[in-house]
Amino acid sequence: MALIVQKYGGTSVGTVERIQEVAKKVIQYRQQGHDIVVVVSAMSGETNRLLNLAKDINQDPRGRELDVLLSTGEQVTIALLSMALMQAGMTAQSYTGPQIKILTDDAFNKARIIKIDETKIRSDIEAGKVVVVAGFQGCDEQGNITTLGRGGSDTTAVALAAALKADECQIYTDVDGVYTTDPRVVPEARRLDRITFEEMLEMASLGAKVLQIRSVEFASKYNVPLRVLSSFTEGGGTLITSEETNMEQALISGIAFNRDEAKLTIDGVPDQPGVAHKILGPIAAQHIEVDMIIQNTGHDATTDFTFTVHRNDYLAAQKILQNIATELNARKVTGDDHIAKISVVGVGMRSHAGIASNMFEALARENINISMISTSEIKISVVVDEKYLELGVRALHKAFNLEQGY
Amino acid sequence: MALIVQKYGGTSVGTVERIQEVAKKVIQYRQQGHDIVVVVSAMSGETNRLLNLAKDINQDPRGRELDVLLSTGEQVTIALLSMALMQAGMTAQSYTGPQIKILTDDAFNKARIIKIDETKIRSDIEAGKVVVVAGFQGCDEQGNITTLGRGGSDTTAVALAAALKADECQIYTDVDGVYTTDPRVVPEARRLDRITFEEMLEMASLGAKVLQIRSVEFASKYNVPLRVLSSFTEGGGTLITSEETNMEQALISGIAFNRDEAKLTIDGVPDQPGVAHKILGPIAAQHIEVDMIIQNTGHDATTDFTFTVHRNDYLAAQKILQNIATELNARKVTGDDHIAKISVVGVGMRSHAGIASNMFEALARENINISMISTSEIKISVVVDEKYLELGVRALHKAFNLEQGY
Repeated sequence: MALIVQKYGGTSVGTVERIQEVAKKVIQYRQQGHDIVVVVSAMSGETNRLLNLAKDINQDPRGRELDVLLSTGEQVTIALLSMALMQAGMTAQSYTGPQIKILTDDAFNKARIIKIDETKIRSDIEAGKVVVVAGFQGCDEQGNITTLGRGGSDTTAVALAAALKADECQIYTDVDGVYTTDPRVVPEARRLDRITFEEMLEMASLGAKVLQIRSVEFASKYNVPLRVLSSFTEGGGTLITSEETNMEQALISGIAFNRDEAKLTIDGVPDQPGVAHKILGPIAAQHIEVDMIIQNTGHDATTDFTFTVHRNDYLAAQKILQNIATELNARKVTGDDHIAKISVVGVGMRSHAGIASNMFEALARENINISMISTSEIKISVVVDEKYLELGVRALHKAFNLEQGY
Repeated sequence: MALIVQKYGGTSVGTVERIQEVAKKVIQYRQQGHDIVVVVSAMSGETNRLLNLAKDINQDPRGRELDVLLSTGEQVTIALLSMALMQAGMTAQSYTGPQIKILTDDAFNKARIIKIDETKIRSDIEAGKVVVVAGFQGCDEQGNITTLGRGGSDTTAVALAAALKADECQIYTDVDGVYTTDPRVVPEARRLDRITFEEMLEMASLGAKVLQIRSVEFASKYNVPLRVLSSFTEGGGTLITSEETNMEQALISGIAFNRDEAKLTIDGVPDQPGVAHKILGPIAAQHIEVDMIIQNTGHDATTDFTFTVHRNDYLAAQKILQNIATELNARKVTGDDHIAKISVVGVGMRSHAGIASNMFEALARENINISMISTSEIKISVVVDEKYLELGVRALHKAFNLEQGY
C-alpha cells in the first residue's frame, strides 16, 4: 500500500489505444492496493500542432496567450484517460493545473511552481479515486494560465509527489531507464539500475533528455525517490535517489552530451568587480538561461568572458551582448553555434584524482581539440567542435570502461 | 461609441486565415470607437474531432470528463484570436469560461448559466482592451468545468451582453440573417430585416437553426438587441428586438421546420390528475427535453398521451416510458422517429382569425396528412410524415405569400 505518482509522456498517451494501455497499467497498480495519482502530457504531436497554429499568426509566439493555447493539450489527455479509467470500472477524476491551484510565478511559457494545494487530490484519494492531473501547467496569483515550458510535466509529477509525500514518483517514457550514454551513439551503452540525484542532474542538464532537470532538482530537494521506466516494456527502470548505496561505486556513471548549445565570447572587457553581473544581468532579465560560464585570468586590465546558451537563444543573446559590449567599451563579440558539449559524470570522481587527465588523453588520442573546459565536484565538461561529438563520446565511453559496469 | 458583444461561430473561425479576418472585423469596429467583447466557438470540426476521440473510448461519452475535453476547443480559439488581434496592434486579453467565473449549474454537457462576474471584463474594457471570451463553457460552484451544450456560444454571448448591459449583441454566422424559411428548401425565401424575440423564439426552437433558443430567451428576458449577420458578406443582417415596429405587420413572418424530433405515445393511461407529471417527471429527470405535448380528451377513464423529444433522446425516452407504462398499467407505448414538424410563425396572427384553416387547407391540397397539431399565440405547428417536409414547407410559403414581403 503505497502512494505512487505516475507520469506518462506524450508518446505514452499518443493515441486512444495507448491511453487505454496506460489505464490498464494504472489499474494493475491499483489492484495491488496502491493509491495512484497520474500526471499526463499532451498526446504526442499535439503541442506541435498547436504551436504551428500560433506560428501561422506570429512567427515567434510567446506570452500569456501561448499558454492559454498550449495548456489545452494536456487537458484533452486528462479527460480521455479519466474516461478510459471509468470505462474500465475505476472511479477517476481529472484536474487541470488551475483547478488544483498549481500556483506558479507569472513567467509565461517557462513558469515555475511555487505551491500546490493538494487538499482536493487527497480527499479524492481517500474516496478511492484515481486522480488524473494535467502536467506542464498551472496558474499565477491572478488566475492566468501558465505553462512550465517543454518537459514541464515531469516537474508537475515530482512537485505533486513532494506535496503529497508520495512513496515514489514514476516517470514513464519511451526509454527503459537511464543509460551510461545515448545508445544511438554508443551501442554498448548500459542501463543503470540506480543513480544519485546529483549524477542525474548532471546527466539531465547535459542533455541525457530522459528527465527534465527541474524535476530532478525538485525530487532531490524534497527527497522523492524517482524512477524512470518504459511505458512499452516491462522492467524496473532506473531508480534515482539520494543514496550512494554501492560500496564499489564506479568512478564514472555516464557520458552526457549536448548539441543544443551555442557559445558567445565578449573580448576585452574591463577586469574589474561587477563586470560579470553587467554582462549576465541583461541576459537573465530576458529569461535566457546560461549554462557554462568561463572567465580567464585577465591581462592588460581587460579579460575575456565566455558563456553558453541554448541555440534557440543564440541570436537574442548575441544582440543583447552587442549592446553590452558598446556600453562596456569591449573589444568585440564573437560566437559559435556549431559546438557540442561532452561531459563525464560520476559521484565516484570526488575521491579519485586523474579522471580529468584520462578524459583529456582519450580525446587527444582522437585529435579532438577542446575549446572550453568546466568542472564540478562530480563532472567534467568540455566543449568541442560539433562534428567530433559522436567520436568523442565513443572514445570516452570506452576509456572509462562503461560497457562493462562495475 | 457603443459596447458591442460579437459572437463568431465555428465556421467563422474555422482556419487561422478566418481568425485573422475576424480580427480585422473587430478592429474596424474598434476604430469606429466601439468597445468590443468577442465570444468565439471552437474552430469548425474541432468539437467533432474531440468527440470522436471520446467515442473511441466510450460509445456514449457524457458527464464531467466530456466537458473537460470539449471545452479545450474554444480555449484554442480565444488564444489564437487574441494573438491575431495583438499581431495587428490591438491590446487583447482572452478568458476561458471558468476564468471569468461564468457560473453554471452542474448539469454537465447541458449546463445553464446562473451568473457572470463581469468585473474583470469591465476593467479590461476600461483599459482599452478587446476582450475575447470562450463561448459554450463555464464552471459550477465546485470549479468543475461545464459546457452549455451545442450552440451554447450564442448563449454565452447574450448572457455577457446582458451582464455588461451592452448596446447590441451581434451573432456572426454563415448566413446573412433570418429568412422566411430555409432557402435550401424554398429558393424564394426572403431575408427579414427585423423580427420580434417571440417570433425568433418560435423560429429557433422549431429548427431555423440560426440562433440557439436559449440565447434568444436570454436576450428577450434582458432586452438585449440581437443581430444575426454574416461573417463573410456585408449587410445589416436581421435585428431581433422586443418592438413590433411595422405598422403593417405581416400575418406570418416565416415557416419553421424541424426533422430532429421523434414522437412517443403512451396509450391507455388512467385519465386522472397527476398522470402527466408521472409520465414527464422521469423524462425531465434525465435532462431529456420535451417539445410538443398532446393529450386527447379521454374515454373509458383512460387517455392517450403523446409528446416529442429530440431524435437523439428517442431510445432513452422510449426505455423510460416503457417502465412508466408498466407502472401506470398503460396499454402500450408506440413511437415514430421519422416525423417532421412544420410551423407557421408570426406575431400578426394574434389579431387575425383564419390562419389555421389557411394552413390546413394548403397542406390538404398537397394530400399531406397531419398527425399532431399544436398551437400557441403566435404559431401553429403540425407534425407530418418526414417525407412530406419539403413539399409542405413550399406549399405554406406560397400560401402565405412570403416571397413577396409586406
